[in-house]
Amino acid sequence: MKKYRKTDFDVNKIRRFLEPGPVILVSSAHGGERNIMTMGWHTMLGYDHVGCYIWDQNHSRGLIEKSRECVINVPTFDLIDAVIGVGNTHGPGVDKFAAFGLTPAKAEAVGAPLIEECYASFECKLVDDSQAGRYSLFVFECVKAHAAAAPKYPKTVHYRGDGVFMVAGENKSYRRKFKPEML
Amino acid sequence: MKKYRKTDFDVNKIRRFLEPGPVILVSSAHGGERNIMTMGWHTMLGYDHVGCYIWDQNHSRGLIEKSRECVINVPTFDLIDAVIGVGNTHGPGVDKFAAFGLTPAKAEAVGAPLIEECYASFECKLVDDSQAGRYSLFVFECVKAHAAAAPKYPKTVHYRGDGVFMVAGENKSYRRKFKPEML
Repeated sequence: MKKYRKTDFDVNKIRRFLEPGPVILVSSAHGGERNIMTMGWHTMLGYDHVGCYIWDQNHSRGLIEKSRECVINVPTFDLIDAVIGVGNTHGPGVDKFAAFGLTPAKAEAVGAPLIEECYASFECKLVDDSQAGRYSLFVFECVKAHAAAAPKYPKTVHYRGDGVFMVAGENKSYRRKFKPEML
Repeated sequence: MKKYRKTDFDVNKIRRFLEPGPVILVSSAHGGERNIMTMGWHTMLGYDHVGCYIWDQNHSRGLIEKSRECVINVPTFDLIDAVIGVGNTHGPGVDKFAAFGLTPAKAEAVGAPLIEECYASFECKLVDDSQAGRYSLFVFECVKAHAAAAPKYPKTVHYRGDGVFMVAGENKSYRRKFKPEML
């Protein structure tokens, strides 16, 4: 599978990749163990903050709670088999990197690995888990971002439920309708 | 603009429309005043719960805090001018329904109006605003859902920032890769 060469990206602009709502691959590590989970329930909560729903049955939750870190990786449609495979495989005892042909790379600010085959990777620190018990909500701050320079608009995948994925379609600019301070 | 005839929809399946990450139009009402806001920062937090980022500068925030209700409406690409117009217009003193050619309809369980031109509308009660101060996060429970029967997969719009919108693309089924209990 294609590996994306990524360069530094402004942490305050990661919304460009997350706000359209793609399925993401969240990698985590703690005490010699590592894991990946497929995630569809996430939102921006500020320009460099992301809220993520991590169910208490997800093996990754324990690794993230202990390490208080993760990497949010943005896969494109060419990774659909890995996206589904990772999502449908339960963590302990399986190295999902090996099982689904994904390559871990060392992050700079966190212990969790980047995924080389993903278009963009955002290193995150857990800053709030006060709603983890009630809503499985974890709030992360992005402390370091990496993204491929091309294509400008990645063909991300978006989950519709029921086994159906939507692939990112046409991009249309309406910049003329926005005042500069709104962009 | 086209009005969608909507029928009752299972509140536990609204993720089918929200999980792909579309821009939504959130309507609210309180004390004879009503408003609409364009929203890109939201996530499922359970099958019938939605977390929404509502900035303290949004006029709608006051209406929602006071009424503790809203309607989440899902627009399609034919409404792009209204989506942008609503998003770029500040609330007080403007009737956004009239200004952008949108038709309010009476909801069943909440005081905020449905938008007839939207493909789906979800009546919501505010159930948690404990993180409103820190993260502008409001958690809603959907108590009544309405959706058009066709097309099955609406052409939603997804914001990439910088004045650029992505239009929902191809839909691909991978049901064969999911066990029945995962669907």
